Amino acid sequence: MAAYASCEGPSMAHCTPDKPREECGVFGVYGKSPGVDAASLTYLGLYALQHRGQESAGMATSDGRSVVIHKEMGLVAKVFPDEVLSGLGGHISVGHVRYSTTGSSRVENAQPLLGRCKYGPVAIAHNGNLVNTLDLFKELEAEGSVFQSTLDTEVVLHLVARSEAQDVEEAVRGAARRLQGAYSIIVLAGDKLMAMRDPHAIRPLCLGESQDAYFISSETCGLDTVGARLIRHVGPGEMVTIDGGGVRFSQAVPARRRAVCVFEFIYFARPDSEIDGVNVHLARKRMGQALAHEYPVEADMVIAAPDSGISAAIGFAEALGIPYDTGLTKNRYVGRTFIQPSQTMRELGVRIKLNPIADLVAGKRVVMIDDSIVRGTTSVKTIEMLRSAGAREVHMYVASPPVRYPCYYGIDTSARGELIASNHTIDEIREHLRADSLCYLSLEGLIEAMGPLGGELCLACLDGRYPVELPDAGAGHKHVLERCSKST
Amino acid sequence: MAAYASCEGPSMAHCTPDKPREECGVFGVYGKSPGVDAASLTYLGLYALQHRGQESAGMATSDGRSVVIHKEMGLVAKVFPDEVLSGLGGHISVGHVRYSTTGSSRVENAQPLLGRCKYGPVAIAHNGNLVNTLDLFKELEAEGSVFQSTLDTEVVLHLVARSEAQDVEEAVRGAARRLQGAYSIIVLAGDKLMAMRDPHAIRPLCLGESQDAYFISSETCGLDTVGARLIRHVGPGEMVTIDGGGVRFSQAVPARRRAVCVFEFIYFARPDSEIDGVNVHLARKRMGQALAHEYPVEADMVIAAPDSGISAAIGFAEALGIPYDTGLTKNRYVGRTFIQPSQTMRELGVRIKLNPIADLVAGKRVVMIDDSIVRGTTSVKTIEMLRSAGAREVHMYVASPPVRYPCYYGIDTSARGELIASNHTIDEIREHLRADSLCYLSLEGLIEAMGPLGGELCLACLDGRYPVELPDAGAGHKHVLERCSKST
Amino acid sequence: MAAYASCEGPSMAHCTPDKPREECGVFGVYGKSPGVDAASLTYLGLYALQHRGQESAGMATSDGRSVVIHKEMGLVAKVFPDEVLSGLGGHISVGHVRYSTTGSSRVENAQPLLGRCKYGPVAIAHNGNLVNTLDLFKELEAEGSVFQSTLDTEVVLHLVARSEAQDVEEAVRGAARRLQGAYSIIVLAGDKLMAMRDPHAIRPLCLGESQDAYFISSETCGLDTVGARLIRHVGPGEMVTIDGGGVRFSQAVPARRRAVCVFEFIYFARPDSEIDGVNVHLARKRMGQALAHEYPVEADMVIAAPDSGISAAIGFAEALGIPYDTGLTKNRYVGRTFIQPSQTMRELGVRIKLNPIADLVAGKRVVMIDDSIVRGTTSVKTIEMLRSAGAREVHMYVASPPVRYPCYYGIDTSARGELIASNHTIDEIREHLRADSLCYLSLEGLIEAMGPLGGELCLACLDGRYPVELPDAGAGHKHVLERCSKST
Amino acid sequence: MAAYASCEGPSMAHCTPDKPREECGVFGVYGKSPGVDAASLTYLGLYALQHRGQESAGMATSDGRSVVIHKEMGLVAKVFPDEVLSGLGGHISVGHVRYSTTGSSRVENAQPLLGRCKYGPVAIAHNGNLVNTLDLFKELEAEGSVFQSTLDTEVVLHLVARSEAQDVEEAVRGAARRLQGAYSIIVLAGDKLMAMRDPHAIRPLCLGESQDAYFISSETCGLDTVGARLIRHVGPGEMVTIDGGGVRFSQAVPARRRAVCVFEFIYFARPDSEIDGVNVHLARKRMGQALAHEYPVEADMVIAAPDSGISAAIGFAEALGIPYDTGLTKNRYVGRTFIQPSQTMRELGVRIKLNPIADLVAGKRVVMIDDSIVRGTTSVKTIEMLRSAGAREVHMYVASPPVRYPCYYGIDTSARGELIASNHTIDEIREHLRADSLCYLSLEGLIEAMGPLGGELCLACLDGRYPVELPDAGAGHKHVLERCSKST
Repeated sequence: MAAYASCEGPSMAHCTPDKPREECGVFGVYGKSPGVDAASLTYLGLYALQHRGQESAGMATSDGRSVVIHKEMGLVAKVFPDEVLSGLGGHISVGHVRYSTTGSSRVENAQPLLGRCKYGPVAIAHNGNLVNTLDLFKELEAEGSVFQSTLDTEVVLHLVARSEAQDVEEAVRGAARRLQGAYSIIVLAGDKLMAMRDPHAIRPLCLGESQDAYFISSETCGLDTVGARLIRHVGPGEMVTIDGGGVRFSQAVPARRRAVCVFEFIYFARPDSEIDGVNVHLARKRMGQALAHEYPVEADMVIAAPDSGISAAIGFAEALGIPYDTGLTKNRYVGRTFIQPSQTMRELGVRIKLNPIADLVAGKRVVMIDDSIVRGTTSVKTIEMLRSAGAREVHMYVASPPVRYPCYYGIDTSARGELIASNHTIDEIREHLRADSLCYLSLEGLIEAMGPLGGELCLACLDGRYPVELPDAGAGHKHVLERCSKST
Repeated sequence: MAAYASCEGPSMAHCTPDKPREECGVFGVYGKSPGVDAASLTYLGLYALQHRGQESAGMATSDGRSVVIHKEMGLVAKVFPDEVLSGLGGHISVGHVRYSTTGSSRVENAQPLLGRCKYGPVAIAHNGNLVNTLDLFKELEAEGSVFQSTLDTEVVLHLVARSEAQDVEEAVRGAARRLQGAYSIIVLAGDKLMAMRDPHAIRPLCLGESQDAYFISSETCGLDTVGARLIRHVGPGEMVTIDGGGVRFSQAVPARRRAVCVFEFIYFARPDSEIDGVNVHLARKRMGQALAHEYPVEADMVIAAPDSGISAAIGFAEALGIPYDTGLTKNRYVGRTFIQPSQTMRELGVRIKLNPIADLVAGKRVVMIDDSIVRGTTSVKTIEMLRSAGAREVHMYVASPPVRYPCYYGIDTSARGELIASNHTIDEIREHLRADSLCYLSLEGLIEAMGPLGGELCLACLDGRYPVELPDAGAGHKHVLERCSKST
Repeated sequence: MAAYASCEGPSMAHCTPDKPREECGVFGVYGKSPGVDAASLTYLGLYALQHRGQESAGMATSDGRSVVIHKEMGLVAKVFPDEVLSGLGGHISVGHVRYSTTGSSRVENAQPLLGRCKYGPVAIAHNGNLVNTLDLFKELEAEGSVFQSTLDTEVVLHLVARSEAQDVEEAVRGAARRLQGAYSIIVLAGDKLMAMRDPHAIRPLCLGESQDAYFISSETCGLDTVGARLIRHVGPGEMVTIDGGGVRFSQAVPARRRAVCVFEFIYFARPDSEIDGVNVHLARKRMGQALAHEYPVEADMVIAAPDSGISAAIGFAEALGIPYDTGLTKNRYVGRTFIQPSQTMRELGVRIKLNPIADLVAGKRVVMIDDSIVRGTTSVKTIEMLRSAGAREVHMYVASPPVRYPCYYGIDTSARGELIASNHTIDEIREHLRADSLCYLSLEGLIEAMGPLGGELCLACLDGRYPVELPDAGAGHKHVLERCSKST
Repeated sequence: MAAYASCEGPSMAHCTPDKPREECGVFGVYGKSPGVDAASLTYLGLYALQHRGQESAGMATSDGRSVVIHKEMGLVAKVFPDEVLSGLGGHISVGHVRYSTTGSSRVENAQPLLGRCKYGPVAIAHNGNLVNTLDLFKELEAEGSVFQSTLDTEVVLHLVARSEAQDVEEAVRGAARRLQGAYSIIVLAGDKLMAMRDPHAIRPLCLGESQDAYFISSETCGLDTVGARLIRHVGPGEMVTIDGGGVRFSQAVPARRRAVCVFEFIYFARPDSEIDGVNVHLARKRMGQALAHEYPVEADMVIAAPDSGISAAIGFAEALGIPYDTGLTKNRYVGRTFIQPSQTMRELGVRIKLNPIADLVAGKRVVMIDDSIVRGTTSVKTIEMLRSAGAREVHMYVASPPVRYPCYYGIDTSARGELIASNHTIDEIREHLRADSLCYLSLEGLIEAMGPLGGELCLACLDGRYPVELPDAGAGHKHVLERCSKST
């Protein structure tokens, strides 16, 4: 057991939260009777949401009075061995998995956050990113709050603690009215489990039920894993409260234009999940089909950049009647252990992660489908590998439009300077990748592929139109038209 | 650092090696100059071979005089963090990954084995399984040998140590003449690296070369990862010796009928590897195609039991012109961490590992392709899941013949009593699985799909004809004809 | 890295701090230049104060702007291996060692506490015990504070954060005015190091200086270890502030009657320390001499209950001219490792900790000197051991008066019901111990042995007169006269 | 769990055992019934023998058929937490603690050693040092033995395994006939526990009994801790065999002149132990008294170099009627944790281990008694500390003769070049120490103080007369007469 903390000072103005752009997963359980083992169910839920965050995992459980918490760096299976799980009693719980792209990770930034305040012990788990954190931090510090982490989530805890509402449910609602940005939040307070989704419903959140318990989950795959059925997705600005009296819905803050994160569909969510009525795998297949219709190509074989391009590749191949095959083998052990191969190792072992099946691709015209290109570093290497394995042509097809703008709502798509499409033309990118051609799906194609949700998406990373205004907005929104390039 | 050992006594006769049927991977490096970092290259090779064994990993390195060893329970990335790797000097090395199906695992059974004998320090890594271990154990104990592990590999070490040969190379050859069974062995002794494959060439083994070093690897994917090209596969009974004078081939023991393990192709090896001239992915595709030809079916969709059925499923779908899709999502985090979900967890979380994409399969006639069925436990659950997700029909097609006989040569296919096909008819199995139909590839189809290697396979687990006689043979070899069942 | 926390709810009133009676040690460093390695110096200081707390250790360091913290369960040497120490930069620091008598120990109750507030990051280490914690807790929660631990120290942090003072020094002073009880506190805030001692100066605290740095330490042995000389002890209610301008003294709260804890002299402090002008070893020798004068005895040998009785035993032996010898050997390894022998072990191994030297004590009349008797459990066993080793007579002499009242100021002398002298006569205790005689030093003798400090002591555990009133006072203060008993 | 091993090659001649001069402790248990918990009793015994070795600890236990082993780096309490202990069944056991002076320590050199041979599993624990290890190593390697460690103990295991005797007891006896040097060995084989002491009885070994079990222990303090009574010390060349038939004594090898290590009495053994009839504390007191008679001195105070000089200091003070006091406080936490303070720390913290009590020694003429001086580094620092604390005179008196010759029998007294008395006159040493006078006990005085054992000691480190011839003997045995020096 160890606790590290670090804090820049002396004044709050210099102390901006240090990892504002994480992606996370949240999961909550409310057992219908005291005998329900909430900790084990939360473990399963977090296991299903592991793809949303591999850096740390945690859960707080309650028997209606006492709250116990355990959180640690690492994957769910490492953080919660049997002896830890069995020590976490209670039939109510809230869990969290967290991802951070930087090396400096700290256990005190792991979630849920637990504190004791006038409403008793309160535990909070948060997926998303607030955009007015700094203002709230300054205000709360001026009023005498003490901060223990650098998470925007802690702001919520303090807002709750300072509420003058009669009960904790109203206190949580009051806190919500102060928040700006993207948030799907679960709050456990005593014998109540509450969940809220921001007014634009940017991050996913759904409610499920089994015979034994109610569940809140970032994605429906969490419900499936515990054998629960979906009740429904939480609406924009909506709050769900579960306690001894059952489930209640209320509007915590007024709903605004729905703007569900499109990147959940493009890359982030699990293919078997359904978000706000749309299945992720089928959406990706339709993106692949749309891409095929926009840029039909003659080729011997369609392959996917594993694993994220598979759904779109199948759709693309089907649409054009070109055989789909697995031209690249992915080492299933890379990136799954907490200890990663060092930089030296990655350089020595160019093929530690991916290997082409040379006997398959040699002499062939290959179309490789990827879900998106962020910085392009992996694509360069993959295309080079395919060529040295003997591929005659390598066409790079991307089942989404170019990512040109950073996300401020909880997905770390890198700083703008690192987004290859932000400062290069498609043709420059194609040359950089040394692809025979490079084609991106159009924004219109993407929107159409999203079906009924097409008009209710946050597309900010693609078109620069941010649904929630940023305190220091104004980043250029250069309109870009071209989306395809061929070598000549 | 800890060492556990346990040993049943008092007499050797009661002390049979306790895990005779593991599958493993071996990797060796011989740097062409002293500056070559053999440890890092071995790390990469073992990383690529990780699928051959996840229980323990180890390597011994040599600078031509001193040998240093490090081995531990766990995955390669856990066993060899940077600080350990950088402490392992030397330009020659031998590494090993080991798999064991039982819970009781012990670090002293990890490999390589290192001992000091008259030839100096000798490190040995072994993939395969000897069938005359007990006889050799008894003989060596009677002559005064002291055993530290329960590995058949230790027998090899003692045979070398007791040789009266002038040099270690001849001593290793002499030891080989005493061994019966399957073995691909790498021996590091001082400044020599030696490798041998048994007279039937049951387990794979190949030799590669880069600008800096020579390599020995269980599979070619190990060579690819370090950027080496294949020189050639080691032949039956052949020995490769690498030292300051370069590479020499010799016949350690007379070659016999080649009998390469067919299960490496069916299930075990990585799809991008090539064994004795045949690419694994393409062989699997051909098995799928053969299955399609033997049992054409009308269906809406072909899906694979992930991930091992994918290659065959693509071949099957292509042959019949039925769309291939990914009907099942696999949680990429299950089974990759050293700590596994407990039994309780597995029961609670029926869908912790696999989840159907309901929106895809609902109302469809689905053919699910698997590479093989051993005990059938996973298949039962998967078919049930597909049905509850709404699939109209579920047809189970297996791209290999029924596994009816245990393997004694290094793959743990379970005891015979646990092999479902060993004591049930195909129809009984189909009913047990609750599949609409169940079809297995014929032995002839399999052999044909294997192309030039078709006549040089060990098919013992399928037809009971063991290439190396067993000390206590005679298990019934009931001839079984039926391979397909349909519900009526 | 792991963090556990647990909190009883739902309302604060049920959530009293769970370990109010710990003894601790504090140490602070203010380097005179940025190059001073405060972390290493703090390590040494804490090492010297390790006897004041073995449960957890921690330190926070600052370069004048950023504050970094590391704390963990275990001994100083375990918590701060080289790689951790070298990662803690900065020339200012505050450290803490903590002791807890109960099994449930939690890393989040380790100190220092670090939080960020309007004054920037603030780290606090505390030795002592506040008696108005619960009132302050309730008040702060009502005002919206969020608590992360169950330490009274966290109250201080919140009082500072809520101050409306212009600077942090004044904020700390303001907080002090709210505290009741015993406290020696070190506060690190940005580039300032502050230290305060409660108005009665119950717990020790001193200021030292070397060529490179200023130091604050619970005991002078901390100063000796880093080669610093004592400037002076901090006075009652006094505050020391160290920053770029050097050292400043101020009166944080008005001084009251000095009441230095007598148990520091009797048992707790290290013999080479000097507290408020009195050397501990010499004070103990004088207690032994006083005991000899009060109860002269005829005996062959004086021995000490190791190690705490040694100083008094030497004084006692010298005063009566009886030879002093080491009749009991203490296993130097018991209790020094973090993992303690289990209860079973302790029962099996009656002599795991102490062993008599039978050849020495056989046939002898032995006087055993102990510093004090709290529950008497060890004394019973020791006397029994000496008898079974052949001692003819065993006289138990105690170099302090009977402990009859609990301490509320930071030393855990057990609950009153467990204090053997609280509900038994001396004669009953002697019979229980099966000693030939049992004599305690008189209160007057003790006071005289303390020399100039005699009139400025907290003697509450001996006479029930508490210098700081308790919220729920009124425990009976039965006056007890008898102090010696002999078997007849 | 991890295993490291390293081995220099290529030929055995270069592979001398790397830590030939360790001091160790051994402990064995033979339960009189199967219900006896041998592991817990061995834990207690090793705990009592912890001073004989702090580097690693291990034990092997047997239920009469199976043998289980656990060994690890670290102190007994760390190596054997409850969960490990409770997993070690069996009523027979052998345990070991090991010390090594060098930093490179390896778990595979921890003891006991366990191997399986024709006699079944055999576990061996060894205290002492063989002087013909290299010859035996060479011979065994030539005959085909494989070595796993660099311990001379492994030679014993191989000699047993190669025996042609009918039973293991005779095989052990046969092995003993090949050994030269110092050894106290415990062998566990199946349902037999055997113990042997070398023909000179250099290292201690004794046999005890309680109601439940028989015990073998390096020192009697091990017997005391488990509540056993001493049966008797094992004689020169004697073997003790314990099995279902009870205890049998036999002469494994012919006894030779008894030569019990005098350093066990001077420094190594615990004061409450008795070796071959002589209590260690009383022997040390007599050494102090003899020193007083040889060099009477006028002084104000006698102090001990803690803790090893205490017994002698008490004897010295008593003999001259000078008050004994504790002038130096030792930090009880130094050296007790597995992680030691780093070199940097030791330099920064001159007083991390010892601190003078300035108020006591200031202005005084102090005699400091130490048990021995090996390299003199600590003495220099201690004397300097006493002077800077104000001592008027510091006289260094050593209760044993100068250590001038290395030990080859299991105590690491450093290489000869590092022994300060080996190449400096007493006067030079005194000047180096900056002592006012320096006096050593005479060899005659030491012998007399040893009483009946006086003529049966190994004094090789003092007089260079080695009882067992060394293979490459001939180190100069310069006769040195002077033993005292005073500053003038």
